[in-house]
Amino acid sequence: VGLGAHVTLLDSLDPRYGGNRFNLQGIEDRVRTVVGDVRVTHVLAPLVHDAEIVFHLAAQVSYSDSLAIPVEDYEVTAGSTLQILECCRAMTAKPLVVLASSRMVVGKVGPGPLTEEAPTNPLSLYGVHKLASEKYLSIYQHFFDMPTLALRITNPYGPRQQIHHSKYSLVGWFVRQAMEGRTIKVFGEGTQRRDYIFADDIGEAFLRCAAAPEAVGQVVNLGSGVATEFREMVTAVVEVVGTGRVEFVPWPENYERLETGDVTADTSRLHGLTGWQPGVDLRTGVARTAEYYRHHGEHYIR
Amino acid sequence: VGLGAHVTLLDSLDPRYGGNRFNLQGIEDRVRTVVGDVRVTHVLAPLVHDAEIVFHLAAQVSYSDSLAIPVEDYEVTAGSTLQILECCRAMTAKPLVVLASSRMVVGKVGPGPLTEEAPTNPLSLYGVHKLASEKYLSIYQHFFDMPTLALRITNPYGPRQQIHHSKYSLVGWFVRQAMEGRTIKVFGEGTQRRDYIFADDIGEAFLRCAAAPEAVGQVVNLGSGVATEFREMVTAVVEVVGTGRVEFVPWPENYERLETGDVTADTSRLHGLTGWQPGVDLRTGVARTAEYYRHHGEHYIR
Repeated sequence: VGLGAHVTLLDSLDPRYGGNRFNLQGIEDRVRTVVGDVRVTHVLAPLVHDAEIVFHLAAQVSYSDSLAIPVEDYEVTAGSTLQILECCRAMTAKPLVVLASSRMVVGKVGPGPLTEEAPTNPLSLYGVHKLASEKYLSIYQHFFDMPTLALRITNPYGPRQQIHHSKYSLVGWFVRQAMEGRTIKVFGEGTQRRDYIFADDIGEAFLRCAAAPEAVGQVVNLGSGVATEFREMVTAVVEVVGTGRVEFVPWPENYERLETGDVTADTSRLHGLTGWQPGVDLRTGVARTAEYYRHHGEHYIR
Repeated sequence: VGLGAHVTLLDSLDPRYGGNRFNLQGIEDRVRTVVGDVRVTHVLAPLVHDAEIVFHLAAQVSYSDSLAIPVEDYEVTAGSTLQILECCRAMTAKPLVVLASSRMVVGKVGPGPLTEEAPTNPLSLYGVHKLASEKYLSIYQHFFDMPTLALRITNPYGPRQQIHHSKYSLVGWFVRQAMEGRTIKVFGEGTQRRDYIFADDIGEAFLRCAAAPEAVGQVVNLGSGVATEFREMVTAVVEVVGTGRVEFVPWPENYERLETGDVTADTSRLHGLTGWQPGVDLRTGVARTAEYYRHHGEHYIR
């Protein structure tokens, strides 16, 4: 919006997935907002009709819920991609489709930084459906010369994320817990490493990739490239927020089956294509997140 | 049926996909046949209910059509797998689910025999949806300890296959063309290599794998392991049938985009697990196929 683009937002505003009108505060008069379901072709088609770029960020967002609602998970996460590509295929000037994919397509990771060439064996339906979405892009690119691009996000967090539950983006959830003076539970020793990436850095990467002709047709990792132990993240949250405490508890059953091993993204492809670098380290990002919810928490906690 | 199993068949009898009651000739009184749609849970659930083994062979079978009917392709090929797994998950004694997958999950292949570890970059929605099905199996195996197994079939052919159109299993289609004295068109020079596998050998491999405890949880190649040039196959058909002729014509547009490179399956995993070996070479298989349609062609050509 700040760069002068005409922006249309399609959002189901499903509260389970973080739908929240307050997220548009400050730009609500400068964007066209449509409340609707990305799965419904007659909702989608007229919106895609005059687009030059389609950022496809819609998904069922909880990987732990994906097995509880498998059909909905497919429809919202991957079926939506197929619908978007079908709408674009019908257009004369094909828009660029930029998919928010996930490092969850990889599943269990090997040692060392994660590259885009890692084998893809997802450990959740969420991951299977993000993988299917990536494959859909490459099929439509291959057969219809449609420009597409997928960004595999590691662990995103930041202002405006949902903080109702712990089912996705734990950083924000822990910020809330700390602000409320609660005890944050860490499963096991919390030594698993994650790659936390701040929302503004994600936005910047999406915009840069969409403007980089060489990025078309690629799958691109999007992470900070920094390995942070889970307990280090939790400690940062408690220290930055200034309240709350940490408790270490055993892994509950089944959670271990979702454990993917240490993840650090190799982001050299993204940097090479666009010059992008992460601008916000974890402590700064947590501080900004906490600051945001201190001012606007009433719009995010019901 | 010959081994004494209680067999239930669920088939949509969709004529596009080769549905044909005559295929049951000789065993129709010894199997339970249900005409229904594998996508419909209330059709599927009671049939799966008392099964010990579920062979999931249902699919939208034309990879070239898959882009014309993308949503149906998902639903019939991969959504069906999800439905079957969901039905099995609800059971106390989980049946073994054996999936007919495809070498099309791999896409463009590298040099040398194709192993199960090849990167999976499908060139068709058909391939994407078979890949999604494989991933579904491994998720349900991982989380619910459900026994599953996927067989990646190369180029199947044999008696009882549909010969109405050329959209899948070209060998049978060419047998019909030759029997009718027609000219068989070969795109390009016809030097691309394929791995043709006879229906009886496929059936044998499915039964052996279903009885091999070590096969559970695996993805297993199922092919002859023999590289046959496309033109060699066509020549064999014309010679064995005794009529028809071959003509070489240029590739039509878009067909080249489906070309995957030479394929020969490495079947050492299948052999190691079950002792299986292909029993029918191409000429013998073509002769049996031609013989079948000489006797029963009227049930397959409308």
